[in-house]
Amino acid sequence: MSRNLLLISTSTTHGTGYLEHAEAEIKKLLEGKKSILFIPYARPGGISHNDYTAKARKAFAQWGISLTGVQEYDDAVKAVREAEAVFIGGGNTFVLLRQLYQNKLVEPLRERVRQGMPYMGTSAGTNVAGKTIGTTNDMPIVHVKTFDALQLVPFNINPHFLDPDPSSTHMGETRDTRIAEFHHHNRQPVVGLREGSMLRVQGDKIQLLGPHPARVFLQTGKPMEFKASEDLNFLMEAY
Amino acid sequence: MSRNLLLISTSTTHGTGYLEHAEAEIKKLLEGKKSILFIPYARPGGISHNDYTAKARKAFAQWGISLTGVQEYDDAVKAVREAEAVFIGGGNTFVLLRQLYQNKLVEPLRERVRQGMPYMGTSAGTNVAGKTIGTTNDMPIVHVKTFDALQLVPFNINPHFLDPDPSSTHMGETRDTRIAEFHHHNRQPVVGLREGSMLRVQGDKIQLLGPHPARVFLQTGKPMEFKASEDLNFLMEAY
Repeated sequence: MSRNLLLISTSTTHGTGYLEHAEAEIKKLLEGKKSILFIPYARPGGISHNDYTAKARKAFAQWGISLTGVQEYDDAVKAVREAEAVFIGGGNTFVLLRQLYQNKLVEPLRERVRQGMPYMGTSAGTNVAGKTIGTTNDMPIVHVKTFDALQLVPFNINPHFLDPDPSSTHMGETRDTRIAEFHHHNRQPVVGLREGSMLRVQGDKIQLLGPHPARVFLQTGKPMEFKASEDLNFLMEAY
Repeated sequence: MSRNLLLISTSTTHGTGYLEHAEAEIKKLLEGKKSILFIPYARPGGISHNDYTAKARKAFAQWGISLTGVQEYDDAVKAVREAEAVFIGGGNTFVLLRQLYQNKLVEPLRERVRQGMPYMGTSAGTNVAGKTIGTTNDMPIVHVKTFDALQLVPFNINPHFLDPDPSSTHMGETRDTRIAEFHHHNRQPVVGLREGSMLRVQGDKIQLLGPHPARVFLQTGKPMEFKASEDLNFLMEAY
């Protein structure tokens, strides 16, 4: 499969501008491309598709890449079929996946990715690239008929992965506990992607990018930490 | 309606034992009752129904109340129909609601509550007492066919309500932002219930208990803080 993916944990790290921390990697992903199709369905903070698109357009414009929002086309499926590259932005994962199904974009997106079209996601857009949305941190503010996601990779992703705060008195579950509970009901590996981290997938090869290690959870055994230099390719062979 | 509910944010507050902070209120709810039916479906940390039941049984035994787990009965519906009182414990809200539907307990629970049977919930067990589970903090580790919950009250609850940490550099959404996003898609009020807080519902009257104010979110307007002494009865008239 000629996959070409950049899966980014968060669009904005503390103290940097929108997409700024990922700029070099985005430029590599989109080398030779002049345009990108933006899918703003996740609507962070409930903003409109057009407002969200304007924000993304501004970032890509400075890199000489013309960005259009999928909602600007009469035929969303055709827009995906003809896109040079696709970017799905963050926001609410349930709202995003529901709209992808409603507009019948799930299969066309899978097909274009199989053909080698560059795909990038941030946060919710990274979460939906995984097997299911079952490891999102988002609130389930709308119902979606299935949690099966785009399945561009055969594992799940937990973006904005957060280590436990030892000083906290809050009794909510830690992220590790939540993912362990996930593995009582699901088999696929989960990659906890800290803010500032990215996964770069080319064909059947995967690489961790960014300053932090990733935390990998298998169905059995203890969570494992992987540095950017370490081999993560076993994740691509997951069932 | 002769509702008699105690909806507790968390089973265990920082530095106190299981159910300890709610002991006086639980005793009032169960006055004159000798037994309670426990529904352990939410399985916190993935523990078994029997292990979870044993934990709850120990707490109620010291108050002279005999507790049985619904899984100990051949006929779960009959167990609900004949229960003196019901307690649904915390854990994962999606796992809980799915099992309630699978075992056809949703309608029997509603019916018994309408008849005046005391109901208590903690965390996930409080969340499912609301209109939908759309304001849970839990990870969607299993799919559930609908987010419609027991609807024992006409609003949603956000248990373990957490105020933003001003020192955090994490870019994930605050609870306020998440609930504002919820209100882009849903009309019902949401009560943010801080740890240590409880809602006591008797008929059409509701009262906040515990040391903290509750944060109430309507579909429009800014969130509002309500102290335990203030009138929250408008919540019971929500559509």
